[in-house]
Amino acid sequence: MADVGRRAALGAAVVALGATAALADQPDALRGGVANGKVDMPKLHDPRTEVEGPLPNADPITRKLGVAVVGLGHLSLDQILPGTLTSNHVRVTALVSGDKAKARVVASQYGVPEAGLYDYTDFDRIKDNQAVDFVYIVLPNNMHAEFTLRAAAAGKHVLCEKPMANSVAEAEQMVAACKQADRLLMIAYRMQYDPYHRAIIKMVRDREYGAVRAISAVNGQNDAANGQWRQVLKQAGGGSLPDVGIYCLSAARYITGEEPVEITAQLTQPKDDPRFREIEDLCAFTLRFPSGVLAQCMSGYSHHESRHLRVMTTDAYIEMDPAFSYQGLAMHIGRKAGPAYATEMRKFAEKNQFGREMDHFAECIRANRQPHTPGEEGLQDQRLIAAIYDAARSGNAVRLPEIAGLDTTRGPPPADAA
Amino acid sequence: MADVGRRAALGAAVVALGATAALADQPDALRGGVANGKVDMPKLHDPRTEVEGPLPNADPITRKLGVAVVGLGHLSLDQILPGTLTSNHVRVTALVSGDKAKARVVASQYGVPEAGLYDYTDFDRIKDNQAVDFVYIVLPNNMHAEFTLRAAAAGKHVLCEKPMANSVAEAEQMVAACKQADRLLMIAYRMQYDPYHRAIIKMVRDREYGAVRAISAVNGQNDAANGQWRQVLKQAGGGSLPDVGIYCLSAARYITGEEPVEITAQLTQPKDDPRFREIEDLCAFTLRFPSGVLAQCMSGYSHHESRHLRVMTTDAYIEMDPAFSYQGLAMHIGRKAGPAYATEMRKFAEKNQFGREMDHFAECIRANRQPHTPGEEGLQDQRLIAAIYDAARSGNAVRLPEIAGLDTTRGPPPADAA
Amino acid sequence: MADVGRRAALGAAVVALGATAALADQPDALRGGVANGKVDMPKLHDPRTEVEGPLPNADPITRKLGVAVVGLGHLSLDQILPGTLTSNHVRVTALVSGDKAKARVVASQYGVPEAGLYDYTDFDRIKDNQAVDFVYIVLPNNMHAEFTLRAAAAGKHVLCEKPMANSVAEAEQMVAACKQADRLLMIAYRMQYDPYHRAIIKMVRDREYGAVRAISAVNGQNDAANGQWRQVLKQAGGGSLPDVGIYCLSAARYITGEEPVEITAQLTQPKDDPRFREIEDLCAFTLRFPSGVLAQCMSGYSHHESRHLRVMTTDAYIEMDPAFSYQGLAMHIGRKAGPAYATEMRKFAEKNQFGREMDHFAECIRANRQPHTPGEEGLQDQRLIAAIYDAARSGNAVRLPEIAGLDTTRGPPPADAA
Amino acid sequence: MADVGRRAALGAAVVALGATAALADQPDALRGGVANGKVDMPKLHDPRTEVEGPLPNADPITRKLGVAVVGLGHLSLDQILPGTLTSNHVRVTALVSGDKAKARVVASQYGVPEAGLYDYTDFDRIKDNQAVDFVYIVLPNNMHAEFTLRAAAAGKHVLCEKPMANSVAEAEQMVAACKQADRLLMIAYRMQYDPYHRAIIKMVRDREYGAVRAISAVNGQNDAANGQWRQVLKQAGGGSLPDVGIYCLSAARYITGEEPVEITAQLTQPKDDPRFREIEDLCAFTLRFPSGVLAQCMSGYSHHESRHLRVMTTDAYIEMDPAFSYQGLAMHIGRKAGPAYATEMRKFAEKNQFGREMDHFAECIRANRQPHTPGEEGLQDQRLIAAIYDAARSGNAVRLPEIAGLDTTRGPPPADAA
Repeated sequence: MADVGRRAALGAAVVALGATAALADQPDALRGGVANGKVDMPKLHDPRTEVEGPLPNADPITRKLGVAVVGLGHLSLDQILPGTLTSNHVRVTALVSGDKAKARVVASQYGVPEAGLYDYTDFDRIKDNQAVDFVYIVLPNNMHAEFTLRAAAAGKHVLCEKPMANSVAEAEQMVAACKQADRLLMIAYRMQYDPYHRAIIKMVRDREYGAVRAISAVNGQNDAANGQWRQVLKQAGGGSLPDVGIYCLSAARYITGEEPVEITAQLTQPKDDPRFREIEDLCAFTLRFPSGVLAQCMSGYSHHESRHLRVMTTDAYIEMDPAFSYQGLAMHIGRKAGPAYATEMRKFAEKNQFGREMDHFAECIRANRQPHTPGEEGLQDQRLIAAIYDAARSGNAVRLPEIAGLDTTRGPPPADAA
Repeated sequence: MADVGRRAALGAAVVALGATAALADQPDALRGGVANGKVDMPKLHDPRTEVEGPLPNADPITRKLGVAVVGLGHLSLDQILPGTLTSNHVRVTALVSGDKAKARVVASQYGVPEAGLYDYTDFDRIKDNQAVDFVYIVLPNNMHAEFTLRAAAAGKHVLCEKPMANSVAEAEQMVAACKQADRLLMIAYRMQYDPYHRAIIKMVRDREYGAVRAISAVNGQNDAANGQWRQVLKQAGGGSLPDVGIYCLSAARYITGEEPVEITAQLTQPKDDPRFREIEDLCAFTLRFPSGVLAQCMSGYSHHESRHLRVMTTDAYIEMDPAFSYQGLAMHIGRKAGPAYATEMRKFAEKNQFGREMDHFAECIRANRQPHTPGEEGLQDQRLIAAIYDAARSGNAVRLPEIAGLDTTRGPPPADAA
Repeated sequence: MADVGRRAALGAAVVALGATAALADQPDALRGGVANGKVDMPKLHDPRTEVEGPLPNADPITRKLGVAVVGLGHLSLDQILPGTLTSNHVRVTALVSGDKAKARVVASQYGVPEAGLYDYTDFDRIKDNQAVDFVYIVLPNNMHAEFTLRAAAAGKHVLCEKPMANSVAEAEQMVAACKQADRLLMIAYRMQYDPYHRAIIKMVRDREYGAVRAISAVNGQNDAANGQWRQVLKQAGGGSLPDVGIYCLSAARYITGEEPVEITAQLTQPKDDPRFREIEDLCAFTLRFPSGVLAQCMSGYSHHESRHLRVMTTDAYIEMDPAFSYQGLAMHIGRKAGPAYATEMRKFAEKNQFGREMDHFAECIRANRQPHTPGEEGLQDQRLIAAIYDAARSGNAVRLPEIAGLDTTRGPPPADAA
Repeated sequence: MADVGRRAALGAAVVALGATAALADQPDALRGGVANGKVDMPKLHDPRTEVEGPLPNADPITRKLGVAVVGLGHLSLDQILPGTLTSNHVRVTALVSGDKAKARVVASQYGVPEAGLYDYTDFDRIKDNQAVDFVYIVLPNNMHAEFTLRAAAAGKHVLCEKPMANSVAEAEQMVAACKQADRLLMIAYRMQYDPYHRAIIKMVRDREYGAVRAISAVNGQNDAANGQWRQVLKQAGGGSLPDVGIYCLSAARYITGEEPVEITAQLTQPKDDPRFREIEDLCAFTLRFPSGVLAQCMSGYSHHESRHLRVMTTDAYIEMDPAFSYQGLAMHIGRKAGPAYATEMRKFAEKNQFGREMDHFAECIRANRQPHTPGEEGLQDQRLIAAIYDAARSGNAVRLPEIAGLDTTRGPPPADAA
């Protein structure tokens, strides 16, 4: 009570400061306002020299599409759920987990109602949940097909983590099922929505630094020896190749826009290392593209994190290091600058990659438009993964029919990612 | 209807896939669970070689402290409001703006109810809003004192942007008012909650690379010539010095932990540049600390963004570049490594700086504990800004009494920022 | 004359300055002196924090070994001849060229007497030149064998550029010839004498960052379409593989110390590009080593200069970029540093690589000791180049017998390269 | 004898190889030749994408100018004498040292005849040495004036290390003496002949990135506590300022081309550190230029090597790190690149800085042309060093008369340094 009295006295005293009046003097134009339902503000900095991004103008919460996140492992907890908070068009409205206690804690953190909680057996009830527009499948790889089919059957659009499945047959079944159910299917190739990778694609297609000649890519990490599902062949469908090597494979494909015609490969499976009882450690594969580009790619599960990409063009090299991480990506362009060599590092603003990716899917759902990375994109990787394993196991080059055209497995590109 | 039929057929067909059963085979220990109300999961990667942060385990939304964001300019829209979404302990429950239309758009984006909207005249009603635990003042500098006093009078704790005020007198009034009202006052020195700057402070205090001898810091940018309030002396209280130069001043102080005893300075105020009719462009100042450290600092409003800090110790240099940006910070340590020179770049995980800072304040509120950067910390900068202007205007060194001890204006440090 | 008078007056006036006397005051210990025929000086900087190399104490010119440089193309003119000037033990005493006018200009620049000039036909007269201790063969690849045999026949030791030859048979003949003539044969693998590459070898052998798991290497450049001998199969013996790809091959071998047991490879030979009428452009090859390490290597002649090496170990990655250039090499070590990832760049002092390499050979000649990279080292690369071409042409993996032991083709390592 | 026999047999056998003939097939145009007394060769690489420097075409040894290096301390032994070997126009023909034994060892390494050896007392005999065209004074600072005067009196041109002298009076005497003797006087400001610093000067003068607004420079190192002459006030004329701080001072001047009009400064002189009994450790000074540019500069003798320069322009920052080292310099340009920030690192070919600098002086001697950094350039630094000490000791800003025009103390710039 004494406090309240003292505070009231303060309130009276402060009127003399009169700062509020000063604010009123400021011209309206500089204070910004609302246009088309969005906030609009003048730039603070000289646009000729300073980078200033757009205002983060999300949709009103009540207009956002609802996503059901299926699986509450590390990727969901560390990246995807936080990513929904950065999204312009998506909010999480349901969670699917085999652990109800965990689901309830997460629900309390993200404001998901009890009615939005499902387990793997009662998941199909989600067809009745009007707050769910699409599901995001973040399960062990061998469950992707099942839950894609169940989600499509429940009338939900499907965003599915990579690798799409554990076999070409499963992948084909997923594409067919979503088609039959008239639901969109997108594979969560986050790099294809990232501004760095989009910038590389644009540089290459515009021949800003001439023609691509070769690509080198490495994506590996040192996994814990804890029997996690990635080390169980039945669940993971393979070792480092489908999990992290797929980033190298995918990058070689979306950068060139082409599909490989010849593959050589080698694997390792170290004895006496409990992580590799069932799966490969390293997978080194080389792709030949119709234009003559060679891409050397390597993945691994037993070395320090290394995520590196270098695209060699006639006039430059374009490097990403790290190339495939969730954050902190950096581009380096090496080229001649007069009498010197220049290496130019470019940095875009950090933004959660999963937020970008989900926003693309939301825009596709709203427009009923094919996603940039539909099921067909994942299916092609699935075919190539099978070919890489064939090449590695046989020791012989695997030759594939030439596919004419560019980006034949992709939908329209995302809106400008910057 | 046909769709629904087709989908139901799919649902039946998929049972044969049986992936769900496979999941059930996985040992419980690897699936994580709930401990002390938080989700707990085993690490995916070998902890000896790979960095893996803690799970983002926020408080349940309903237990978070509520913040009223006062002022909806660029900083609030671009950084602070998105920062609340990354916070563990805080959510936005009220908005204060002179533009009701803008406030309503923002409220719809962040889920703030109409009852949580205030303008500058009816702000004092906030005392009745139980959903607001503290206010975050993000107004032109000349309004900081008024709103701090009004907020304290309304019984709210206060987090106030830097610079704290436009004069020592205002700053003293703010400290006194919050003390009288028994409310916590924290100045939003985000760098002091950032893991890079905390790491530098620790390196220096632990003498990991010997004793600090000298500091060099630059913080400048190229402001638009648009008459924004930062270019109006009455509102901003000065030019680049209180706005961006304060980061250099503050860094020299928190890195050494000392307070300067001698200051020399020079200013520029370019004629014919409309940005500098009332305020300085460059401010170059040099601080001498009791231990003998010299710190050279410079701020500016007319050059390309440059945010650089270098701490020279006997055995190394520790550089931040960029040092004071909202994201993308990087540390570089230059030192001898056997027969070679080494420059080591360190990268911490990106996390919204304002989220970290608000979380610290929330923890202090809950524990009724002095913040690490209380009003006293801002007050000392205010005194030094005044001394820098004195030195620059007179051309003479300004000498200040030596203050014994380290960190005399700071509360307990934040919990480990990693 | 007037000048002389004025100058004499100046000379007298200056005595008053007396600085010479001041110098005499300085303690002897700080002025250094002579020890064992070398200059010795105290360090200027604190050795705990600053890198200070040894004084460049070359042998007296008259005691240096004499080298005959055979071939005056770019490599000789740009690198090797300037390299002799930085050498401690070698000076150029003879030049061999088909262009006498060019040879005379170069001789005037390096102080080679007319008697030290030879052409390709009268080269064998060099046996009578006592000022020549060894020849350095810097000719088109198809001439390496001939001139090695002629030099050995002339009683000279032989330092031969890489690739050693154009075939295994030639290489074997060279090894046999030098053995028969009791002359040392060293292949000019400059990287194996470079401090960066020696540091990597040491890190790997000491397991400073754990065990090597994988290696990625690229070495390519954009050659002029001018019909230079490197584009003539008969002269070059191949395309990018023996010329620049050999650096990747060699690095994979000296870093692991092992010899590969399995090779897969792919080539490109772009039609309509005049550079590739006879030779390959890209060569991508993958090596499997007995320890399980996979190395992916790629060379090219049609893309912007790119010289990159990354060694992935359990605990780190060790990167060189550029890895194989004549100067400006840089090492980058990526590893965990507490809660952050660190990338440490190391820089050694620049020193001409050819000077280092020639100094090693001179020391071997003086000690009658096997060089670190003897003919056997080149012969093994020759065998592997043949195997790579086999693999590429057949599409099938080529398997090689496992060779026990490490560094089986190498002589004692060079003295500390720092 | 047996060896000789075996070798002869080899010589006969090798004829069959026939490689020599192959070489003869190569078109002449690709083998290069001689033009204007220099070697000329076609480029190896595609000039559109690859950097390829000029051939290192030195003058014939017998036409080079002869330099007498005066003083055989670290700088002469580590840098200047090796630098003569890289020079196009200069060779060392005389050595001056107080230690005859050391001088003889060095003479044997560089081919200096006994007749070219002098000590400090008999130095004046050098007037009779026709092989000496100029002297390079590399002595303790207090001896610069004396030896400049004695050298001029001996009819030799003078290249003198920085700082030119220990006082303005000495510097004026040196300029006057060389003028009177009609000898050229150049101060060895090596950075002004370095391609990086020349590139910055050009960028700034061409306003490639807009106008300069501010400069920040640090040059410091951790000197050994060994009583070396740099720590003796009488010999060094000051502490870190004239020795290493002069690089910052000089850079601010040659980058802007202007002369400062106002200076503030602070020094430190740590008690109980034997290095600083007589001299300052840190010197922090701020220069105001007529155009409004502020430059903050700092030097030190007690911290880890740190040599950093950043030029802030309206549109970019241009950074050198390291900025003032003997080798390994690197330029970094920070600027906007579309929606991203770019940091471009540029690397020029390494070339000994002292070789470049001596070549410039040799060209000036041959052309009887004022050097780019004549005595007047050093004299101006001497005046400013005195003003910096005044400002630091008084605590008051020192104001200097405005000097109109750019580069008023400099001769014609060196030929293109690339």
